[in-house]
Amino acid sequence: MIDNNSSSKYEFYFKNLLPGQSIDCVIIGYDLEELHILVLKWKGTDNWSLPGGFIQMDEDMDTAAVRILKSRTELEIGFLDQFFTFGNKDRRNKDELIQGLKIINMNTSLAQWFQQRFISTGYLSLVNMKKCNPKPDILSDACEWKPINKLPKLIFDHEHMVKKALEHIRIHINYLPLFISLLPEKFTMKALQKLYESILQKTLDRGNFQKKMLKLGIFIRLEKQLEGGAHKAPYLYKFDEEKYSDLKNKGTGFIS
Amino acid sequence: MIDNNSSSKYEFYFKNLLPGQSIDCVIIGYDLEELHILVLKWKGTDNWSLPGGFIQMDEDMDTAAVRILKSRTELEIGFLDQFFTFGNKDRRNKDELIQGLKIINMNTSLAQWFQQRFISTGYLSLVNMKKCNPKPDILSDACEWKPINKLPKLIFDHEHMVKKALEHIRIHINYLPLFISLLPEKFTMKALQKLYESILQKTLDRGNFQKKMLKLGIFIRLEKQLEGGAHKAPYLYKFDEEKYSDLKNKGTGFIS
Repeated sequence: MIDNNSSSKYEFYFKNLLPGQSIDCVIIGYDLEELHILVLKWKGTDNWSLPGGFIQMDEDMDTAAVRILKSRTELEIGFLDQFFTFGNKDRRNKDELIQGLKIINMNTSLAQWFQQRFISTGYLSLVNMKKCNPKPDILSDACEWKPINKLPKLIFDHEHMVKKALEHIRIHINYLPLFISLLPEKFTMKALQKLYESILQKTLDRGNFQKKMLKLGIFIRLEKQLEGGAHKAPYLYKFDEEKYSDLKNKGTGFIS
Repeated sequence: MIDNNSSSKYEFYFKNLLPGQSIDCVIIGYDLEELHILVLKWKGTDNWSLPGGFIQMDEDMDTAAVRILKSRTELEIGFLDQFFTFGNKDRRNKDELIQGLKIINMNTSLAQWFQQRFISTGYLSLVNMKKCNPKPDILSDACEWKPINKLPKLIFDHEHMVKKALEHIRIHINYLPLFISLLPEKFTMKALQKLYESILQKTLDRGNFQKKMLKLGIFIRLEKQLEGGAHKAPYLYKFDEEKYSDLKNKGTGFIS
């Protein structure tokens, strides 16, 4: 339990935060099989949530998002994108909130801080799971990767947040590939297709997929992948970052 | 000047608002020639801004956006989409703010309200200019449509907001046409192409455009437009709302 004494040490910290503003992070990883999301288990409960945090008075919101993400993953951030702001007045279920705060003495200003109305901005990050070192925060006792199709029930509007984050990726992936950070440096077209299929949650036609991808002109063909019979071995590819950057400025899509 | 007396009547109103949270609206119209944006001129200044407002304590953020939009346009809202939240700590230039507030006695709590740090969520609306009846707010003495390529200089980060709103439309237009509310009920493919060109700020190939559009299967071909020689008259089209709705659920794009 965080009692009056230990909670008082947080109070100075909370006095320096913007009131009513929070950040929640949908941190997505890919193990070359399926997408995963990083979730926290609140201390002494079975409640799972997205990692989140608050914004300091003298801190830009994007800087706060980077700080929060680093504190949970210990990663230098690659891809980080704001995707949506959640402003419904009843977005946080009171019972779930009180359950989650039972380790805090509810008379402290720390508890009051958590009980105000929050508008929360969602940030989406695509990270390399292997380089990530998940760390719980002061209110949680676990921080774990869960496969996107087997997520535990999440508190508040956090399931809606995950849905919006995936929608954001799907819309942008049709505009521009934005998943460089989810793939190893060298990859096959098959691995790329599998990633697209995980994100779009549908099966894609192999020939059509490769044709459209290669037409983008942002991949460099490398040596063959050495496994199986050499004549069947698929080519490895890597991103051409310069051409990717050109494409990003130009934009693409079905009216290109 | 809004003095202590008249400002006090606003104070009750401001006490019922979420602190530090604002909404700014990029309201876009189309006169079949070019895109226009609705802007306000602050009382007694040459400063122009986007229309905006605040969120009541017991009001969902989306509901606040609808209320703000209605109060400026007197329109029943058709398309309204949240596009981005602006959270930089220095996003509002202090000199511009003080200039804008010179009609307010700066010692009132009304002035203090405006001087706090705000995180602002941008909402984008596409409206029928002909049906819109622009109305200034209490701090402005003009509310006007300006062509997008001839916008006056806007205060704070409002030019950046317009840029982000257009980026949002461009990305989504590649995913799905979202401009139904910008066109008359019946339109030619040429008018549709002109709208796309206004949004994307580039010229499109006529044959390719028509082919891609008609392939979407969301247009119903009507009679010919009766002007010029009958054999040259272009067909009119209207949206097939049911098929549009199917497409919206399915999504489209270059990986479709």
